[in-house]
Amino acid sequence: MIKNLPALSFENGCLVFVDQTLLPLQEVHVATDNYERIAEAIERLEIRGAPAIGAAAAYAVALSLKNVTCSHEVTFKRAYARLASTRPTAVNLFTQLDRMKDKFDMHSDSLKSIYDIMLYEAECIRDEDAQMCSMIAVNSLEPMRFAAGEKIKRGGSGKLRILTHCNAGSLATCGCGTALGVIKKAWDEGLAEFVYADETRPLFQGLRLTAFELNKYGIPFSVNTDSTAAFLMAQGNIDLVVTGADRIAANGDSANKIGTYNLAVLCNYHKIPFYIAAPSSTIDKRCLSGKNINIELRSPEEVLRVKSEQIAPAEYAVYSPAFDVTPAELITGIITEKQLYKFPYNF
Amino acid sequence: MIKNLPALSFENGCLVFVDQTLLPLQEVHVATDNYERIAEAIERLEIRGAPAIGAAAAYAVALSLKNVTCSHEVTFKRAYARLASTRPTAVNLFTQLDRMKDKFDMHSDSLKSIYDIMLYEAECIRDEDAQMCSMIAVNSLEPMRFAAGEKIKRGGSGKLRILTHCNAGSLATCGCGTALGVIKKAWDEGLAEFVYADETRPLFQGLRLTAFELNKYGIPFSVNTDSTAAFLMAQGNIDLVVTGADRIAANGDSANKIGTYNLAVLCNYHKIPFYIAAPSSTIDKRCLSGKNINIELRSPEEVLRVKSEQIAPAEYAVYSPAFDVTPAELITGIITEKQLYKFPYNF
Repeated sequence: MIKNLPALSFENGCLVFVDQTLLPLQEVHVATDNYERIAEAIERLEIRGAPAIGAAAAYAVALSLKNVTCSHEVTFKRAYARLASTRPTAVNLFTQLDRMKDKFDMHSDSLKSIYDIMLYEAECIRDEDAQMCSMIAVNSLEPMRFAAGEKIKRGGSGKLRILTHCNAGSLATCGCGTALGVIKKAWDEGLAEFVYADETRPLFQGLRLTAFELNKYGIPFSVNTDSTAAFLMAQGNIDLVVTGADRIAANGDSANKIGTYNLAVLCNYHKIPFYIAAPSSTIDKRCLSGKNINIELRSPEEVLRVKSEQIAPAEYAVYSPAFDVTPAELITGIITEKQLYKFPYNF
Repeated sequence: MIKNLPALSFENGCLVFVDQTLLPLQEVHVATDNYERIAEAIERLEIRGAPAIGAAAAYAVALSLKNVTCSHEVTFKRAYARLASTRPTAVNLFTQLDRMKDKFDMHSDSLKSIYDIMLYEAECIRDEDAQMCSMIAVNSLEPMRFAAGEKIKRGGSGKLRILTHCNAGSLATCGCGTALGVIKKAWDEGLAEFVYADETRPLFQGLRLTAFELNKYGIPFSVNTDSTAAFLMAQGNIDLVVTGADRIAANGDSANKIGTYNLAVLCNYHKIPFYIAAPSSTIDKRCLSGKNINIELRSPEEVLRVKSEQIAPAEYAVYSPAFDVTPAELITGIITEKQLYKFPYNF
C-alpha cells in the first residue's frame, strides 16, 4: 500500500498532478506539458501547498521551452510572468522561479538543449524538496520527544495528541510533507497517538486532504470545525499544534493558511506548544516582519458556495483572506531542514 | 419593509414557523398543529435558538391538547417527554416545558378548555420573550456607550465594529433577538457602524441567518469564516464581540454555539470586550459551573456534507459538539432583561 500520494510527478514529458480540488472523493490525475494549464492549476488550487507550488512552477517554466515557436527568451519570460502572477503569498513560488531564471540566464545560449537543462533543474528542485521534508521530520524529533516527556511528567502517556491546520503533507510538497511529515514521523517513532485535523474553511483542505493522508497512512484521527479547536484545548485533548508556513519574515512572523494565527493565540492561552514546520526556502529575509507580507484575498464565492451548493446569496459581502500572520513571539519553534529555531528568531 | 422576520407566529390554530434550514435562499413557512412535527423541527434546526425553541415547545405541548383522543394527562405527558428529548443543552426548553407543566397540573381538571388555557400560556411565553429581547437591548446601551467612548479615547469614530457568532436574532427568539437585538439597538442609536458575522460552521447560522437579518435590517456587514475572526482582531477591526447563550451556570460559565469560547479567548488576548446577551431564563442556578452543562454532540454528517454535497467520506471520524463553554472570567458582561451583570457573577 502506498502510504503517501505525491502531489507531483514527471512522466513521459508531462507534469502529472492529482487534482486536489476533487480529493478525497475522486482521485483524478492530470498530465500536461502546457505551462498555462499548470498556472491555472495553481490558481484553482488543483495544485496547492507552498513547496508543491514552487516545484510545479519550476516544471511549468521548463515545459514552456519544450516546443518553442518563437524565441526561447520571449517564451521563458512570458511563462515566468504568467507563473509569478498565480498566487502572491507563498515565497517558494518566487524562490523557485528565480532559481529557474538564473539557470536560464546562465545557459540560454548553451549548445545543449535548454529544455533538458531546465527540466533537470526542476527535477533537482523536486528531489531537494523531498529531501528537505525528510530532514524537517528528523529535526522535529527533539521537540516532539521533549513534548512527550513533558506529558509524562504531567502523568500522561508520553504519546502526543497533535492538532494541525490545513494540509502541509505529501500533497503540499514533493515528499512526506512539512507539518504532516513531522506528524507521520512522530507516529512512526511512537511519539503520537492521535491527530485532530481542523477542517480548514473555506476550502476544507484539512477535512479533505489531511484526513485523506492520515487515513492512507493509518494514523488515528478525527476532523473538527476550525472553531472547535479551542474547546478541544480547554478539555485537555491537545498536547501540541504544528502547521506549515507559506512565508516566514526575517523576524519569525509567519504567514500560513487563515486560522493559523487563531490557533497560535489559543495555544498561548492554553500553554500548548505551537510549532511551524517549513523548508528554509520559506524564510524570506528581505521581508523584515509580518507587516510586509502581501496577503492574498480570495473570492467571496469560495465562502458563499460549497461545490455546487449555494449557501447564501452571491451578493453578500465576504472578507476572505487566504492567509493570516502569526507573530514570532507566539511560535514555540520553527522546524526547518537545517535546524530547529527558537524565539527570538535569528535565521 | 418588515425589518425583522419572526421565528414563530400562531395563526388559525397552527404554529407557523419559517424553516431556517432553507434560509436565506428560500423562505418557506410551515404551519402545523402536530406537536411531533414541531419536535422534529427543533431536532432538525428548522426552529433553533434557545428562546425560540422554548416558545415552540410551549406551543407544541399546548397543541398536543387540541384534538385529544385519549386522556389529557397521558397526552400531555407524552408530548412533554417528546419535546424534552429534542435537544439537551439549551435550558429555555426545559424552563418553558416546566412552566407549561405547572400550568397543566394546576388546571387539568378546570371547567374551561385546558387547550385554551395552555395556548394562552404559550402566547404569554412568546410575548414575554419579545419583551425580554427589547429590555436586553435597552440594558445593552450602557456597555455599548462605554465601548464607543473608549474608542473615541483611542482616537476612533465612536461607532463600533461588532463581531457576532451564530444567530441570536429575531430568528432565534420571539422578538428582535438577544445578541443581534443588541446590535440592532446599537445601530439604531448610532453606536455601531459595521458588523462582522462569523459564518458559524457546521450549519452556517451566521452566513445564512445573521447575514439575512442584517441585510433585512439594513446594517452594513460582511461574513467571514470562523477562524478569520482572530486576524480581523489583530488588524484592529473589531471593537466588541457579543453573542447569545444557551445555558449560563450559576458562576457565569456560559454554553453557547461552538466557537464562542474561541472568540472569548481571542478577545482576552486582544483586549476586546466580550459580552453575552441572553434572557435571565437562560441562567440555570441549579447548574453550579460549566462542568455541569451537558454538551450535545451532533452528527458527523453535518460536517462531512454540505446540503447535497459530500465533502469527505462518510466514514471519517468527526468531533462535532454543538456548543462550547466559555468560563465566566473571560466574559466582560452578561446582559439580561433585568440588568447588566459583571464578573464575578452573582445572579
